[in-house]
Amino acid sequence: MSVNGKAEQRLRDLGIELPPAPTPFGAYVEAVQSGNLLFISGMLPTAGKEAKYVGRVGVELSVAEGSKAAYMAGLNGLAVAKEYLGSLDKVTRVVRLGVSITSSSEFKEHPKVADAASELYESVFGKEKTSSRIVVGSSSLPLGCAVLLEVILEVEA
Amino acid sequence: MSVNGKAEQRLRDLGIELPPAPTPFGAYVEAVQSGNLLFISGMLPTAGKEAKYVGRVGVELSVAEGSKAAYMAGLNGLAVAKEYLGSLDKVTRVVRLGVSITSSSEFKEHPKVADAASELYESVFGKEKTSSRIVVGSSSLPLGCAVLLEVILEVEA
Amino acid sequence: MSVNGKAEQRLRDLGIELPPAPTPFGAYVEAVQSGNLLFISGMLPTAGKEAKYVGRVGVELSVAEGSKAAYMAGLNGLAVAKEYLGSLDKVTRVVRLGVSITSSSEFKEHPKVADAASELYESVFGKEKTSSRIVVGSSSLPLGCAVLLEVILEVEA
Repeated sequence: MSVNGKAEQRLRDLGIELPPAPTPFGAYVEAVQSGNLLFISGMLPTAGKEAKYVGRVGVELSVAEGSKAAYMAGLNGLAVAKEYLGSLDKVTRVVRLGVSITSSSEFKEHPKVADAASELYESVFGKEKTSSRIVVGSSSLPLGCAVLLEVILEVEA
Repeated sequence: MSVNGKAEQRLRDLGIELPPAPTPFGAYVEAVQSGNLLFISGMLPTAGKEAKYVGRVGVELSVAEGSKAAYMAGLNGLAVAKEYLGSLDKVTRVVRLGVSITSSSEFKEHPKVADAASELYESVFGKEKTSSRIVVGSSSLPLGCAVLLEVILEVEA
Repeated sequence: MSVNGKAEQRLRDLGIELPPAPTPFGAYVEAVQSGNLLFISGMLPTAGKEAKYVGRVGVELSVAEGSKAAYMAGLNGLAVAKEYLGSLDKVTRVVRLGVSITSSSEFKEHPKVADAASELYESVFGKEKTSSRIVVGSSSLPLGCAVLLEVILEVEA
């Protein structure tokens, strides 16, 4: 039933090269499937074990840097999904993106930051598979990161 | 199987008029169904595109104002569900309510604020469909809002 | 199909005695099952109605105290699951642990705190049922608690 599954082709067309899938920072795994739902662990803007965007968006980091952090976390999520599934063509829907943004209480531009991840997933999976979304501000995130991304995918049985 | 589905009648009995369903602030949709679960995007205390309760509960806003914000976000969630499903009678269970409250570190009265949304859903869907719940304090929320509500519903297949 | 379900035996072998299951602080229930997924409400480091670890990890509380708070919330989650299911042997997978940690913006040691809950669940359910995980910093949590734990379990139909 991969008739509409063009994600791998889109990745190539867009010239997106996925990073190696991140590995856990503790006693958990990066992806768990239950039924048709694939729950991916909180993705950070990391390369290997190194945090690349550290600080609060709107204080130490600009909105543009926050967006780059969200994009990088998004790529890590795609890498985890591909490693688990073998092919991103098995994704039938992006069910939920949850975006946590380290920020002070004055910050209001959450949608701009979150859109960098959302637009990446739209470009890879297509607008017809666009997700629901939750975006919140966090007091802090693991390793001091600026953004954490939650991903729930619907996948072929 | 709408034998127990009296939500629409209850809405009328309670004199609750739903607002127009909110529309996204970014690259996402307001509701995604996967199997029997309907994931609704983070609902805010907004009317149209305007945030109605801005600031931290316990600092700029009182607990009573925070409760009104939670109720308003709850109404928006019902409006999204009704638009997606056609009728709230198709809801077989409120699975999860997640309530994020913008607050300082001194705030402790989360349950009071969250109950305004929970009690709304209980009054509409009935106590036998009461949800599980997660309530946390956020450093900030989109548009500066005081409350964000996550809703996961179980719906007829 | 409880062939692999050795959680109850492991609990005994480890000498873990579960506390009484917590009861809600508001208009919600502690567990909702939909299909094979059991959604447990946000668990706190409480005994009865009393919060045992209050304050920010890294400020008023040490990382070690935060870990104890996460462990205590984890035990409460097991107590809720056992009360709902009758036996923890019905758990086929720990799908998701979500850990919120009250913290200032300088805090970075989230994985250490969260691991206290994750390792508890691994020791009870086995490494082959290890969860995905989301860990974030919260500005505040209900009752002033240091940690809140979200648990989603996959259970026998």
